[in-house]
Amino acid sequence: MLALPGKAALIGCGVIGAGWAARFLLSGIDVTLHDPDPEAPRRLDLLLERAERAWRRLTLAPVRLHGSFRFAANIEEAVADADWVQESVPEREDLKRATLAAIDAAAPPEAILASSTSGLLPSRLQEGLARPGRFLVAHPFNPVYLLPLVELLGGRRTDPAVLERAERILSALGMHPLRLHHEIDGFLADRLMEALWREALHLVNDDIATAEQIDRAIIYGPGLRWAIKGTFQVFRLGGGEAGMRHFLAQFGPALELPWSKLRAPELTPDLLEKIVAQSDAQAGGRSVRELEELRDDCLVSVLLALKQHGHGAGAELAAFEERLYALSHRRSLREEDDLDRPLRLHETRVQPEWVDYNGHMTESRYLQLFGDATDALLRYIGVDRAYVDAGYSYYTVETHIMHLREVASGEPLYLTTRLLAVDDKRVHLFHEMFRSRDELRLATAEQMLLHVDTRAGRACPAREDIAGRLRRIGEAHARLPPPDLAGRRVGEPRARRSA
Amino acid sequence: MLALPGKAALIGCGVIGAGWAARFLLSGIDVTLHDPDPEAPRRLDLLLERAERAWRRLTLAPVRLHGSFRFAANIEEAVADADWVQESVPEREDLKRATLAAIDAAAPPEAILASSTSGLLPSRLQEGLARPGRFLVAHPFNPVYLLPLVELLGGRRTDPAVLERAERILSALGMHPLRLHHEIDGFLADRLMEALWREALHLVNDDIATAEQIDRAIIYGPGLRWAIKGTFQVFRLGGGEAGMRHFLAQFGPALELPWSKLRAPELTPDLLEKIVAQSDAQAGGRSVRELEELRDDCLVSVLLALKQHGHGAGAELAAFEERLYALSHRRSLREEDDLDRPLRLHETRVQPEWVDYNGHMTESRYLQLFGDATDALLRYIGVDRAYVDAGYSYYTVETHIMHLREVASGEPLYLTTRLLAVDDKRVHLFHEMFRSRDELRLATAEQMLLHVDTRAGRACPAREDIAGRLRRIGEAHARLPPPDLAGRRVGEPRARRSA
Repeated sequence: MLALPGKAALIGCGVIGAGWAARFLLSGIDVTLHDPDPEAPRRLDLLLERAERAWRRLTLAPVRLHGSFRFAANIEEAVADADWVQESVPEREDLKRATLAAIDAAAPPEAILASSTSGLLPSRLQEGLARPGRFLVAHPFNPVYLLPLVELLGGRRTDPAVLERAERILSALGMHPLRLHHEIDGFLADRLMEALWREALHLVNDDIATAEQIDRAIIYGPGLRWAIKGTFQVFRLGGGEAGMRHFLAQFGPALELPWSKLRAPELTPDLLEKIVAQSDAQAGGRSVRELEELRDDCLVSVLLALKQHGHGAGAELAAFEERLYALSHRRSLREEDDLDRPLRLHETRVQPEWVDYNGHMTESRYLQLFGDATDALLRYIGVDRAYVDAGYSYYTVETHIMHLREVASGEPLYLTTRLLAVDDKRVHLFHEMFRSRDELRLATAEQMLLHVDTRAGRACPAREDIAGRLRRIGEAHARLPPPDLAGRRVGEPRARRSA
Repeated sequence: MLALPGKAALIGCGVIGAGWAARFLLSGIDVTLHDPDPEAPRRLDLLLERAERAWRRLTLAPVRLHGSFRFAANIEEAVADADWVQESVPEREDLKRATLAAIDAAAPPEAILASSTSGLLPSRLQEGLARPGRFLVAHPFNPVYLLPLVELLGGRRTDPAVLERAERILSALGMHPLRLHHEIDGFLADRLMEALWREALHLVNDDIATAEQIDRAIIYGPGLRWAIKGTFQVFRLGGGEAGMRHFLAQFGPALELPWSKLRAPELTPDLLEKIVAQSDAQAGGRSVRELEELRDDCLVSVLLALKQHGHGAGAELAAFEERLYALSHRRSLREEDDLDRPLRLHETRVQPEWVDYNGHMTESRYLQLFGDATDALLRYIGVDRAYVDAGYSYYTVETHIMHLREVASGEPLYLTTRLLAVDDKRVHLFHEMFRSRDELRLATAEQMLLHVDTRAGRACPAREDIAGRLRRIGEAHARLPPPDLAGRRVGEPRARRSA
């Protein structure tokens, strides 16, 4: 199939070169590095440790920096038996050209010679080389071990077959090679970033805003979208159902306004038609509604991702959740509540990320929902944040689940809960999960909870008001007929107990 | 505490106005809308449905579009009893000024009057108003119901107390109000976006790249970072341990290169020191290493978020995982395997997002890990993707878990598996989970799996080679002493069986 390079040589081992090392090692490719900085090996170790840590979180697939690596004393030794040489020295054309010439002279003739340059033209970089045909630009983005983008382009003398081979190799490394067909200073990504950066520098230079304000203006708004959609797709959706043509009709005139120090090209009818046609091609027949749903699904997941780390827009979300709870006055036990039936305290809907590749809710999500029903019960009996912060809580010590039916994404569900037995330390309960539209029973869970002093790490009696509420519910539920699927051992025939 | 507006009036109900409606309704604020377009009510319904769907996925807190909404026939009726009026009509200064004048004349005197303008100057918009003091700009971003950013600024005649009040209200709506202290066309976010957009339009106009290439140049690279870090923070990390000063030393000269059609300001010593000082202030004493770790943690979570939807960089990740599995040659049963002990087929590490606010692994993650161990067993006995694609699989029908110990984020774990009984349709097994560093047992799970014809939806015998491997393991495991925590009913005293 694909011949991955057996050995890569990396010339220059700063943030970018070390990032390339992680990419190659992750794919089992041996690496030889050269960098005149004596600090380079220490920095490489740090970066490889970080890359491995990140990848172990990214995937359940086995992650190992398989390949071996060593530092070579000079360029000649580093590249002597390499199949791929990646140059990542500082961004100065004279330095890059001298380095590339030295590599070209020493590397095996069939080795690919790639530069990490952020925007110098490949035709100029390859000028002095003896074998310019095997030279190309492969421009990655920091952190190279996590961001898949790599801009791939050749100069006038680059062999197209080498570009094809490089594209396949970069894909196999888990990267996204973006083939560019026209040389331009800064390529695509850096031109776009550079325009934004220069605008930002003007804002600081003119004392309009600070670095902190400018960064906030990105990460709480446009930046969240840019993780998902580029500017053309974002603006297509900004036009609503009428799409890009409508957007340009509405915001085209703003191109004449002083909304950036960069002058826009004139929005001629030709340019307008070109943009609309390219935007339509990009949408590939998907409606604005479909694109909006995908955007929203991704945005929700990105916001949840940031919430895990209490960062940026995710921190805002966490704060707002508290208000949502307050708005809906959390449900707690009242004197007049009817307890002559199982409690119905939790309902939800099967979310897309809960579903496996068969389209069914994943096994562990059943337990998550039973856990949510337990949390709802605890709130109902008065276990609130203050109680938990004071060092008391209920821990689940034992669970028995019966998976009865599969359930698909999007289905509304509800759960019921009954108490089988309570004492001052223990709650023995039985949850049932139903599909809302037809009350089909999907699963049951029998659980034992233990009241604990979380600081001492041992069981202790619950506060009297909480224990009292549990007793009141427990006494009422004791009058209900016994549940059919409680008290089972795994594998016990069902007929015996449900008869 | 905070007096939220009791009623909001929304004038203009396109993509932005309808997004505001969702924000207000989510916080229980009643809304009256006015839009001359007869299609507006239908589009609002669609958007509210989408917003509610998104928020139900965003949070387990109760989500309801609590407030009521209705359309008014004209501006006067819409704003008559409003506490907050939001103008979101098309981006034309004459139209906005006429609309604002009509609102100002009809709204109660203490109502806040906010414009959604993307970049028109508040001092100019407030010129003709009878009560300019209560006028301000609150510029949100599409989709308004998900992106928290709202740029907040007044004109020369805006009352500072009104801006304070608006800031508190917008925060309470779950938004991130970014206070701007200088009026400039396009404010901050739109200037930054506009510079990038104009650069992109030049690239299309000059036939250097297509809309699709330009969007890819964002979403596979810089866009992923912008969800997490703004440009100043990104570049600080681009400088490695030496930070912003080093970055500017290395890339400052690129400001002179034609890497954008926008000319940068001259990087004078004054500007350089200003940037370094603002960047240091932003970092707030956190080291480059800490910032890089936070960035990586967030990037990992964002990539996983996109993988859920098979989108962009997440799709690349999914493809690369297949290669990682191939690289590590998945483990399957071999003739020479020693079966005289429980199988040890799965190990992992507690990931940060598996942990609850107590710092312990969440209940449902235990079942996820037992499920992963079951998956490893199935691969080991030859249940591969081809077998599943052919319509056969094992489903879990029953699970009994004992939670024995808590476990913290970052801990390495391993799981062992033994077969208690097998026949041609059923596998009865027992998993144990251990903390790697001291072999402390954390939990056990007893499970019953059923072999199913997934298309027919009923049990059927497993293929003979798979059944044969199970028999071989089962016969060997039958010679091991019985496990202490299998065969239990929930609540059964432990001493009885572990004695």
